[in-house]
Amino acid sequence: MAAPNDEEGAVGPRCHHRSTAMLDVPFLPFCAFLGTLGLLCVAMVGTWCQHWRGGFSLDGSSRTFNWHPVLMVMGLVVLYGAAALVYRIPYTWSGPKLPWKVLHGSLALGAFVLTVLGLAAVFYFHNSQGTPNMYSLHSWMGLGTVLLFSCQWAAGFGAFLLPWAPSWLRALYKPIHVFFGSTILLLSVASCVSGINEKLFFSLKNGTMQYKLLPAEAVFANTLGLLILIFGVLVVAALARPSWKRPDSDSPDSRQ
Amino acid sequence: MAAPNDEEGAVGPRCHHRSTAMLDVPFLPFCAFLGTLGLLCVAMVGTWCQHWRGGFSLDGSSRTFNWHPVLMVMGLVVLYGAAALVYRIPYTWSGPKLPWKVLHGSLALGAFVLTVLGLAAVFYFHNSQGTPNMYSLHSWMGLGTVLLFSCQWAAGFGAFLLPWAPSWLRALYKPIHVFFGSTILLLSVASCVSGINEKLFFSLKNGTMQYKLLPAEAVFANTLGLLILIFGVLVVAALARPSWKRPDSDSPDSRQ
Repeated sequence: MAAPNDEEGAVGPRCHHRSTAMLDVPFLPFCAFLGTLGLLCVAMVGTWCQHWRGGFSLDGSSRTFNWHPVLMVMGLVVLYGAAALVYRIPYTWSGPKLPWKVLHGSLALGAFVLTVLGLAAVFYFHNSQGTPNMYSLHSWMGLGTVLLFSCQWAAGFGAFLLPWAPSWLRALYKPIHVFFGSTILLLSVASCVSGINEKLFFSLKNGTMQYKLLPAEAVFANTLGLLILIFGVLVVAALARPSWKRPDSDSPDSRQ
Repeated sequence: MAAPNDEEGAVGPRCHHRSTAMLDVPFLPFCAFLGTLGLLCVAMVGTWCQHWRGGFSLDGSSRTFNWHPVLMVMGLVVLYGAAALVYRIPYTWSGPKLPWKVLHGSLALGAFVLTVLGLAAVFYFHNSQGTPNMYSLHSWMGLGTVLLFSCQWAAGFGAFLLPWAPSWLRALYKPIHVFFGSTILLLSVASCVSGINEKLFFSLKNGTMQYKLLPAEAVFANTLGLLILIFGVLVVAALARPSWKRPDSDSPDSRQ
């Protein structure tokens, strides 16, 4: 690379700071927008299942299946996203860290419980209908994501919440936990999108309701899929943004 | 957070460095592994279409469609991944940057050309069969990803390769380009996975070849989907790894 001349050397860094400042967005309004988007996704997946797919029940019919998309979007996308963002709230940066760790772990546990219920719904539906489980790529990816999530939760609990976890272990595991935090969310989003796509091909195949004729339900559920994608990408962008990270985020995490 | 005592203060950072060092993997062997994995994905998608889906042609039949998955995996996943990793090769860190910028842009352009050909294959197939275009969530997400990619390429060319681009623009745009670089790859991967899932539901529906009975083709293509996912996640992990970044990666990029 050619060395910058004196003028560029003087102007460059100032320009850099100025233009970086132009991109500054305060975290809390962004977070409120994300919360609204997440709630919209939950409302839309509920509306889809209630209005077009017959509503909800526990009788093993397709109305039992309907709990699956709702619980997965609530748990593995929206509540998971909220858990991931806890340490980005500036209010959490001062004072003891333990309460925020407990909140992070509790929200993630809540997300995990909803996810397991969502899996139970689809397994119960399949078993009631005599349909095999775990054959589609959607199911392989989805179950793989949930297994990764369970490892992530257990390892996070063991390394960061048990007070006797050694600091070398925390230092070793922290970047792995952070990386898989974003990765699992993106795998969840990819699983949701392939699941919505699959469900629409299953459900819309007769007369004027064919998926390829793009009836209102298809437009609604496709839009839901895109909003889930946007939610996931924005959460990962918020997690990656250097200026929104906890100032001591590079430390291996001290004992409480 | 409780302040560490003296002993912890002395031991902690050493432990931190030691455990971080334990995670160190040299870039080039990792890159060779990624290259092998990428080639395996291309070989597998080609084998799937050749062995189970009737091979390739340009006659508007389903054998024309078969170009679509092959070109998308080659272009929007594997070649795109290679383009994204150019600046992580330590050999590129010294000497003039321009040749590496040209290589990065050229690989991305090659990926874009393959992608457009891949889109042309599916549009030509649909039009020949009288099937509507752009109705599934897969198609919405996939076209959205390609549109983002085209904006990314054009903006990258304008900001980093045109010598008269002002440095404030480069500084402003660089983090956005880097973020969308990873995001577009993950959207591509999600599009591929939903597309493979969709194609298997379309193709495997009769007798012993039903998808839910998991015939050999289903196992093969599901495995392909998971390998594409793993490839995408590993490329993004390599891009995010601080020690593999070009030492001046925070600079807004100087003129050539």
